Amino acid sequence: MKEFQLIESFFTGRAQSRKDVAVGIGDDCAIVEPAESKSIAISCDTLVENVHFYPDMPAKDLGYKSLAVNLSDLAAMGAEPAWMTLAITLPEVDEHWLAEYSAGLFEIAEYYGVALVGGDTTRGPRSISVTINGQLPKHSGLTRSGARNGDWIYVTGTLGDSALGLDLLRNKASCSESDSTYLINRHYRPTPRVLAGQALRTRASSAIDISDGLVSDIQHILKASNVGATVNVDQLPLSKSLTNSVSTEMAYSYALTGGEDYELLFTVPEAQKGALEIALAETGVKFTQIGQICMGGKLKLMLDKKTFDPINLGFEHFS
Amino acid sequence: MKEFQLIESFFTGRAQSRKDVAVGIGDDCAIVEPAESKSIAISCDTLVENVHFYPDMPAKDLGYKSLAVNLSDLAAMGAEPAWMTLAITLPEVDEHWLAEYSAGLFEIAEYYGVALVGGDTTRGPRSISVTINGQLPKHSGLTRSGARNGDWIYVTGTLGDSALGLDLLRNKASCSESDSTYLINRHYRPTPRVLAGQALRTRASSAIDISDGLVSDIQHILKASNVGATVNVDQLPLSKSLTNSVSTEMAYSYALTGGEDYELLFTVPEAQKGALEIALAETGVKFTQIGQICMGGKLKLMLDKKTFDPINLGFEHFS
Repeated sequence: MKEFQLIESFFTGRAQSRKDVAVGIGDDCAIVEPAESKSIAISCDTLVENVHFYPDMPAKDLGYKSLAVNLSDLAAMGAEPAWMTLAITLPEVDEHWLAEYSAGLFEIAEYYGVALVGGDTTRGPRSISVTINGQLPKHSGLTRSGARNGDWIYVTGTLGDSALGLDLLRNKASCSESDSTYLINRHYRPTPRVLAGQALRTRASSAIDISDGLVSDIQHILKASNVGATVNVDQLPLSKSLTNSVSTEMAYSYALTGGEDYELLFTVPEAQKGALEIALAETGVKFTQIGQICMGGKLKLMLDKKTFDPINLGFEHFS
Repeated sequence: MKEFQLIESFFTGRAQSRKDVAVGIGDDCAIVEPAESKSIAISCDTLVENVHFYPDMPAKDLGYKSLAVNLSDLAAMGAEPAWMTLAITLPEVDEHWLAEYSAGLFEIAEYYGVALVGGDTTRGPRSISVTINGQLPKHSGLTRSGARNGDWIYVTGTLGDSALGLDLLRNKASCSESDSTYLINRHYRPTPRVLAGQALRTRASSAIDISDGLVSDIQHILKASNVGATVNVDQLPLSKSLTNSVSTEMAYSYALTGGEDYELLFTVPEAQKGALEIALAETGVKFTQIGQICMGGKLKLMLDKKTFDPINLGFEHFS
């Protein structure tokens, strides 16, 4: 057990504090003091070795990503990050790995002002489970169920980079070194759109973060809101590195179905469009209108004014 | 992935709701509304197969225990249980196992009014990580650091049952069938002292739950409070099933060092002794005074007015 106390030393001493943490790590529970009239957003994501990441993933990037994916969930609700717990299971004590992992974790925790307030360290097959807590004004949470007929559909950032980055890592694709560096970084270090999410909160009608891929995740909004959508494939935001590296059709495939983008997909009523675009522009986050909500419950993809059916094109990511 | 949506169906549909859950399972985050002027207590515990439980542990008991050990941490802070997230990793979809596990989990969740508000289901070696949130009035949390010279030391319930229960399960001990049933149940289904913890909150000076064993866990209070303690071994509360089954010396060994009791160990200033005993008696939870806090930073065990050194007696649990 001494060994595992050593593990804890990598996390306990370095947890940044917040004024609203009354009791931090080291007691039976942490105690935090939410601001008056705030609600708490809670989310939990687990990363398991060989399922969500490969053993060769750099520990520092894994530390970063294990919090980033949770922050992305907070972003999709429009919440402000506050506190997290970390349940980490490791096969053995590897001090170099732990130093790197914790450096990556605290790098992003400090950037977004997240305090590590508790956790558990156990021996076993490597897996990491983070539970994140954020705050937001009461009755202001951005859910998946508010999209209405006529709302405009937007995404932040660019789509498909992460999936191509993974294929590059697995030697299933190749490209120039500078593009490769960019795309792999997008896979290992997704940017949670925390500020954009807060800017959306009072103006968007629905939001979700793209973890499984645009086509898959938009369905959650359509189902929860009981609406349909038209998405214009040629409006999908694609990075130069993506379009440099693969054919246009493959780029669309990555963008539609690649997954792990951790960009926000959101809908905006016509009346809020101007205010939202101003608010988002202030955050400095790129955003692109890609389609519109309609009646009917189905997703229709359009390209050059024709219906676009990626399954018939045999895109390998469409499974 | 379809398979894992099936797993989620065992948890999502059956989560009990609470009025303070504004958005439950199924969005990017849950949103909960803490009561005005309350702090939030947060704790996280992971149970890994072959480390914290054996593969032959009944799934229903594992469901129960995986929340019970977290509730015990809330109890030790004096917090009222509210919301939890569940990160569960399973090697395969076993519907019978899932039905049993979730039945045990929801049995205790409903008893203590805990709403499951989120989680993640992943494939991999079996492990379960619960993060629990409780509420308590601001600035009232019961920590490990408040014990003062002269305070009385108490424990709830009886000690050592769980450790003997585990030895019975592993065929390292034997006893009558009725005692065995009782002791194994104490191992599989510890009772989190939630009501007792709330009764202690304004009256005890420190508290901890006993997970590693009395001798080990009291050190956390002594270290955090910078005090010593005298514990009278012959005052340790022992169940009939324990004393029926092993020698007196072995019973002391189990009670001092066995672990997994999930009883509360707490300290009380002389001035609060009467009020605390009345408040605790109202909860119906058994409690026993076992010693007193002193200066000096060390733990002294006493038996028949002599210093008691369990190491020299070669107690097998003293390692």
